[in-house]
Amino acid sequence: MSELLKNVVEEFSNLPGVGRRTALRLSMHLLRRSEAEVEQFVDAVSRFRSQIRYCKRCNNLSDDELCPICSDPRRDRTTLCVVEQVGDVMSIESTGSYKGIYHVLGGVISPMQGVGPSDLGIDMLVDNVASGGVREVIFAIGTSLECETTMFYIKKRLANFPDVRITTIARGIGFGDEIEYADEFTIKHALNNRQTF
Amino acid sequence: MSELLKNVVEEFSNLPGVGRRTALRLSMHLLRRSEAEVEQFVDAVSRFRSQIRYCKRCNNLSDDELCPICSDPRRDRTTLCVVEQVGDVMSIESTGSYKGIYHVLGGVISPMQGVGPSDLGIDMLVDNVASGGVREVIFAIGTSLECETTMFYIKKRLANFPDVRITTIARGIGFGDEIEYADEFTIKHALNNRQTF
Repeated sequence: MSELLKNVVEEFSNLPGVGRRTALRLSMHLLRRSEAEVEQFVDAVSRFRSQIRYCKRCNNLSDDELCPICSDPRRDRTTLCVVEQVGDVMSIESTGSYKGIYHVLGGVISPMQGVGPSDLGIDMLVDNVASGGVREVIFAIGTSLECETTMFYIKKRLANFPDVRITTIARGIGFGDEIEYADEFTIKHALNNRQTF
Repeated sequence: MSELLKNVVEEFSNLPGVGRRTALRLSMHLLRRSEAEVEQFVDAVSRFRSQIRYCKRCNNLSDDELCPICSDPRRDRTTLCVVEQVGDVMSIESTGSYKGIYHVLGGVISPMQGVGPSDLGIDMLVDNVASGGVREVIFAIGTSLECETTMFYIKKRLANFPDVRITTIARGIGFGDEIEYADEFTIKHALNNRQTF
C-alpha cells in the first residue's frame, strides 16, 4: 500500500470520532479537490494551530491580544456571561440577542480530571468584575455536578461584590421540543417555574 | 469571532460528512495537540495531494510509477481482480488470502454521472490481459445496475480472449450475519447456490 496514503489515513484516524473507514473516505475526497483547495485547507489548519491566541480579558479564542468582542466598544461591559466552551460563545452570538461580554472557562472544575479553578481563568474573571463596571454575571453553563461546583466556586469568589447580580440562564422545555421526550428534572423545573400566560 | 477559527471551521466543514459542529470539535481538538503533531498532519495531507500517483499498470494509488503490488515479483500475474475502489484493494489485501494482481476501476459506468469506460482505465485492463499471462479475471465489485453494466462491458471487451476465465466473487450470507436480517435476493441466491455439507 502507498506510504503517502497510509500516512494520510493514519493522520485522519487520529482525529476524534474518525475511524479508518472515514479516514480513507476523507483521504480519497482530497484527490477530488484541486491542489490549490487542499493547500488552502492545510494552510488554514496550520495557521490556526500556530497563530491562534487566547483573549487576555475573556479567554476566548482570538487572533489578537483582545478578541473581537472584548475590543468592540459597542458591547455592554456591565453584563458578563460565563460559558464553558468557545462554541457556546458562537451559539449565543448567532442569536444576536446578547450584547454583553463573556468569560470562557474552557472547562469546568473536575478533580477527577485534574481541572482546578486556576485552569479556568477564574482569577481573570474576578479581576474583570473587580476592575470593570460589571453589574451582572450570567452563568450559561451546564447542570452537571461539575458545572454546579464551578458556579458555586465562582459565586463564592464574587462574594466581595454584593452589588453584582448573579443569574443563570432559564431552564425549561425548548421551543419545538416534545414534552413527552423531556427528562423528568426538566419537566419538574418547567412546572415549578411556570409563568403567567 | 476569530478569523483563524472561522477559516479552519469552514475548511473542515467542506469535508464530506462534516457539519459545522463537528468542524468546530475537530478545530478545538487541534489545540490539544502539539504544534509538531499538527504540522505532521498538515504535511501528510499536503504531500498526499501533491505527490500521489496512479499505478500505470493497475490504476491503484501509488507513490511510484508502479504500485507496491504490481512491482512485487512474488504476486501471481495470472489472476487479476477487478475492484471499484482503492479501499477494496485494502480490504482484500488485509485478508492475506489473495496473491494475484488488481485493476482499480475508480468507479463504475454511470451515464447519469457522466462516467464512461474511458474513465475507468478499461483499455489499460484489456492491455494487461492481452500482454500478460492473465488466465482469470475476478470481478469483486457490487451488484447495482451500474456494476452489472460495467461487468458486462468488460466481459465483452475481453471476448477476444476465450481462454481467460471470468468469475465473480461468491454472494451469500456473511459469516456471523443473521439470516433474519439478510435481504431476500441474498437469501434466494444463497439457497440456489447451496453447497454440499
